[in-house]
Amino acid sequence: MIRSALLHRPESEYAYLEDSTHLVLRFRTAKNDISSVQALAGDTYLIDTGWYDHPYEMKNYLSTKDFDYWHVVIELNNRRASYAFIVTDNSGASLFFGDQGIFDDSHEVRAHANNYFRLPYFHEIDMVRTPEWVKSTVWYQIFPERFANGDKENDPAGVLTWDSDVHPTREDFYGGDLQGIIDHLDHLVDLGVNGLYLCPIFKAHSNHKYDTIDYLEIDPDFGDKETFRKLVQEAHKRGIKVMLDAVFNHMGDLSPQWQDVLDNGTNSRFANWFHVNKFPATYQETADFEQATDITYDTFAFTPHMPKLNTANPEVQKYLLHVATYWIDQFDIDAWRLDVANEVDHHFWREFAAACRSRKDDFYILGEIWHSSQSWLNGDQFDAVMNYAYTDAILDYFVFKKTDFSTLQDQINSQLVLYREPINEVQFNVLDSHDTPRLLTQANNNLALMQQTMAFTFIQPGVPCIYYGDEYAMTGAMDPDNRKPMVWNEAEQNTEQYQFVKELVEFRKAHHQLLSSGSISWSGDDQLLIFEREQNGVNITGYFNTSGTAQRVPAGNVLLQGQTKTNGTELEIAADGFVILGD
Amino acid sequence: MIRSALLHRPESEYAYLEDSTHLVLRFRTAKNDISSVQALAGDTYLIDTGWYDHPYEMKNYLSTKDFDYWHVVIELNNRRASYAFIVTDNSGASLFFGDQGIFDDSHEVRAHANNYFRLPYFHEIDMVRTPEWVKSTVWYQIFPERFANGDKENDPAGVLTWDSDVHPTREDFYGGDLQGIIDHLDHLVDLGVNGLYLCPIFKAHSNHKYDTIDYLEIDPDFGDKETFRKLVQEAHKRGIKVMLDAVFNHMGDLSPQWQDVLDNGTNSRFANWFHVNKFPATYQETADFEQATDITYDTFAFTPHMPKLNTANPEVQKYLLHVATYWIDQFDIDAWRLDVANEVDHHFWREFAAACRSRKDDFYILGEIWHSSQSWLNGDQFDAVMNYAYTDAILDYFVFKKTDFSTLQDQINSQLVLYREPINEVQFNVLDSHDTPRLLTQANNNLALMQQTMAFTFIQPGVPCIYYGDEYAMTGAMDPDNRKPMVWNEAEQNTEQYQFVKELVEFRKAHHQLLSSGSISWSGDDQLLIFEREQNGVNITGYFNTSGTAQRVPAGNVLLQGQTKTNGTELEIAADGFVILGD
Repeated sequence: MIRSALLHRPESEYAYLEDSTHLVLRFRTAKNDISSVQALAGDTYLIDTGWYDHPYEMKNYLSTKDFDYWHVVIELNNRRASYAFIVTDNSGASLFFGDQGIFDDSHEVRAHANNYFRLPYFHEIDMVRTPEWVKSTVWYQIFPERFANGDKENDPAGVLTWDSDVHPTREDFYGGDLQGIIDHLDHLVDLGVNGLYLCPIFKAHSNHKYDTIDYLEIDPDFGDKETFRKLVQEAHKRGIKVMLDAVFNHMGDLSPQWQDVLDNGTNSRFANWFHVNKFPATYQETADFEQATDITYDTFAFTPHMPKLNTANPEVQKYLLHVATYWIDQFDIDAWRLDVANEVDHHFWREFAAACRSRKDDFYILGEIWHSSQSWLNGDQFDAVMNYAYTDAILDYFVFKKTDFSTLQDQINSQLVLYREPINEVQFNVLDSHDTPRLLTQANNNLALMQQTMAFTFIQPGVPCIYYGDEYAMTGAMDPDNRKPMVWNEAEQNTEQYQFVKELVEFRKAHHQLLSSGSISWSGDDQLLIFEREQNGVNITGYFNTSGTAQRVPAGNVLLQGQTKTNGTELEIAADGFVILGD
Repeated sequence: MIRSALLHRPESEYAYLEDSTHLVLRFRTAKNDISSVQALAGDTYLIDTGWYDHPYEMKNYLSTKDFDYWHVVIELNNRRASYAFIVTDNSGASLFFGDQGIFDDSHEVRAHANNYFRLPYFHEIDMVRTPEWVKSTVWYQIFPERFANGDKENDPAGVLTWDSDVHPTREDFYGGDLQGIIDHLDHLVDLGVNGLYLCPIFKAHSNHKYDTIDYLEIDPDFGDKETFRKLVQEAHKRGIKVMLDAVFNHMGDLSPQWQDVLDNGTNSRFANWFHVNKFPATYQETADFEQATDITYDTFAFTPHMPKLNTANPEVQKYLLHVATYWIDQFDIDAWRLDVANEVDHHFWREFAAACRSRKDDFYILGEIWHSSQSWLNGDQFDAVMNYAYTDAILDYFVFKKTDFSTLQDQINSQLVLYREPINEVQFNVLDSHDTPRLLTQANNNLALMQQTMAFTFIQPGVPCIYYGDEYAMTGAMDPDNRKPMVWNEAEQNTEQYQFVKELVEFRKAHHQLLSSGSISWSGDDQLLIFEREQNGVNITGYFNTSGTAQRVPAGNVLLQGQTKTNGTELEIAADGFVILGD
């Protein structure tokens, strides 16, 4: 037995409450090293009753290249747990693994109270809960300057002609606005999406609006508060939730607060709103910033236009918490997406989450974090993160052909064991966005491959998001090319793709419960990947042909397909095709 | 290389800030498997400068039976870190260990930003800080009903004659009170202790006062608020800090709140202050409670006299936070010890810690937790826990002779790697208390062995606590025998022990900086244990004879000794003796 691979961590993704009386336990062992793991669990104060003689069998539920992961759900009605693990290897040798380390299993070891891990009392207030509605949501991301121009009155000076067949520069304006979104809400309804994620809409200088000037104003190029109020109301009428983008890591350098610091230095009432290392704060171009030995103020990356906010300052906290709740209280938004969320302190995010949830119990909080995010996903801060590590694994396998089947399985499963199930169920799975090239462009304009990749993503736990225009097969390279004006000219719309995305969204919503929380099984190989979900005896199985030549599978009840046709008692999946079968 | 043993966890005891620009990194490998671990670290946004080609060497700083632990402190003035590890085994083979798993080391792997763990920005507000004053503190624990009777006026009815040579029952009263403590403060000064930990002093029914009736009143048997105010003032005048015991997990069943619930059921305004599962809440004896299939209300363990408080109720939170701050604001206490702290929710403890620290920035918060406590020791809740797992390891080795030298080393080091260094420095190390038999009794009245065990404890990181009367070699079996009246009769006081404890306390305080934060080295064997501390080139080394026969070590500068005498160029340590040498 590889003792040093055995791992458990109390009060983490390895031990958490499913509800007020059910404890989820996970355990890690070296791959293929262990034949069974059992959990011993019971009320701490009833150890003398010998509950440790009635173990719970754990299930090997996910594997990575190096590890097997085991889990079990245990009901304990007294809401107090002592627990430990009995690990048995392939030779039949057993060990006791508990809070004081590893012991040979014996009655004496089991009977000793201090040998157990503890979840001392089951507090619902500490439990990780995520909003139920997110699990049945398919998101649609809009970059507002480029979605639709509904009001010519608010166009910025020098606006260019709306044309989806252009390569925008970083400085271009096309006149997209909130009225344009309202005008096309029925497009979203027809497509079936029911969550709208808007990139920033607050007053800012750039076309992307990530350099906020005023968090309490709608950017005048986009409309005004009444337009936004109407947008939320009309979206809600149609069953569509609304998520806004909050840029709280930094402000734009044209904000009155930062301008006041530049003007008044230490005498500014905003002097402590930022991270000024040395007064006077002086503007330097990016290149100088990187090489500077003493940068006068901290910024996002080395972008002098984005001075970093000091969220440890109670005045800044108060201001940003007011912003956070203002848009909930006054405009009824349903979610915040938090830009550069990992660079803001945990202390602030805890207050932020408490404030938002005090307004709406099922408010959704999504952080932009690209790396492992356990510290933000313990229930007191975010519900989910932008799940790039997960979707990168999908892209690397399906689109870029950089990895093999076992690597994909390893990468996906490694991400799933990082977080508690309620988190996995609402993770935000994006294949492209305003920060990446468009999916079709990444797929070298291979529409079948794009559809295969989307289908695989839509049968994952975690909720999918469609970047505006992908439903019409828009193309675009890296920023700013991924921000072309939306294709509203019907002659340029790809209706085959539209029909596919519509069916895909319908499929996801129809099966969201199973797809959110069903178990996962992998089979197949580099030719034909088989990914199965199961819950309460109901199965959904996806077959993905990644071989380059046609593959056959036995016929079944087809829920969704791409490049697949029936051939007698079999289904023939063409290269880059897929089929999803279900009960 | 045993890949599956490699472990790191971002933003945990494995990665934390030492100060605003210094990052502490730890890494775990299988014991004796790895010849070197290097950290790659730099500013996330400057990865193109190739900082990953200039690794930091990590030091193998502690080992357990199964693992080696490595650490390094890295200065990063931009206050942003991406980092990963290069692990080299004894054959010279190297691997890259990062946020996306394990890779063969290569330039391509190192240059890929997503392969790195992150501490995205160094936020001091999230940093774990512990109070500086605790590191130079030696605590003294008093069970107030048994320390000294300073005021006959407030004696409870039926008080017994003060006599340290008795075996008290659970129901006895001896008349100890706050005035008695004030009268003997100069005893504490003479002994040298500078922290006073008082078991509960609030109005309660029992002699131990863990069944609180009113948290805002001093128990009338102990005195009144003016007496307590004077006690704190007189202690502070003498440089002694004061820690009170807060019992927030449960109340006494004689509290007006619980009585109101019993009287008025669902109509009580306190109906939601407790965890009542079914009204009417009915009193049952402990034995019935344990066997009940439906307990009408949750309690501490199965003690019907101690109904559990519902700390998720905002009214209860407000009340207990008022209690917490009232005794700081009005009486200037310096610390809270929290009874059954593990069974109260984290959400409440975060608010509690914020409230206390808003009053006193260096307030000390100590939780009673007997098991692994990472979830409470991340900076937002407690500073330390009652370190029973640590002191049990010491007792098992020195006193009970149940373990061998390598097991002691394994157990102690396993505890040290559970927490960040600032936590280890203020952990609360008790060898006995009102909840355990007295140390001398556990040592079978072997005073030399008691002194050896205390000396070993006093050279550990973490602050020691002396249970009242141990300085006079009082004896006592398990509760209630460990709560005998203090021996004030000079004829019964063991003055040899008193002199020893006085020297021990003086030694600890004189070297507290090194003993708190110096490095640790183990050598020797089951005959003669050698434990060395080092900081900035200064050494303190303890030699502990656990062999049963005399042991010799080379002579040196003796800082403290027990049963040791000079013999030419050597020191001869008798059985159960020790010597501590230093520069």
